[in-house]
Amino acid sequence: MSAKASMKKQSRSKDEERTESPSEETPATTSGPQNHIYVGKKPVMSYAMSALIQLSQVGEVNIKARGMAISRAVDVAEIVTKRLGNGTFFVKNINISTEQVKSTETGEMRNVSSIEISVGK
Amino acid sequence: MSAKASMKKQSRSKDEERTESPSEETPATTSGPQNHIYVGKKPVMSYAMSALIQLSQVGEVNIKARGMAISRAVDVAEIVTKRLGNGTFFVKNINISTEQVKSTETGEMRNVSSIEISVGK
Repeated sequence: MSAKASMKKQSRSKDEERTESPSEETPATTSGPQNHIYVGKKPVMSYAMSALIQLSQVGEVNIKARGMAISRAVDVAEIVTKRLGNGTFFVKNINISTEQVKSTETGEMRNVSSIEISVGK
Repeated sequence: MSAKASMKKQSRSKDEERTESPSEETPATTSGPQNHIYVGKKPVMSYAMSALIQLSQVGEVNIKARGMAISRAVDVAEIVTKRLGNGTFFVKNINISTEQVKSTETGEMRNVSSIEISVGK
């Protein structure tokens, strides 16, 4: 479990989306489920592979993204459900919301859309 | 029904990501439900305004987008439900799917993710 958590942390490292809330970066300390994939600027397939690994271990995964990465998160969900996984997994729920993000340049708060796609069996 | 189908076909013609379907601009002519907004590369607010007009007339709108425009479609839905409309409208349903699009350069078919967000009262 800890190995998995540290892997996740690493995969989320730098280039997620520029800014991401720091609270999400340290899920290892909490006891909650670790089935989140944060989609950023890496190639789609690297997220799809992470998602498949999570799915095979936990049976469910939440694919999350903000801003411009939202379309890539949809790609990941579509690849996992349609192209990989042999029809085992389905999109179970999709939520969109707005998050407040502090701009690194101006320091102002701005609104960024986010998506959370639940994929499971 | 046939009017709707032909409209849909037409609107999906080239690539919404760049160009916007001309059919949306003249919704008055056809008889089917015209509550679709195809999100492309225009500023977000222009789609949000179109969506609000549709909502005030029909009470429901489907916000659609493909590829990179997906994140903008989420922005439109969030603006309409959270910032404009005074809390009258809500996201009712979200669907993601994959569409086959013929590349204009190579002529090959490629997969493009798409989203459809239903917003209503």
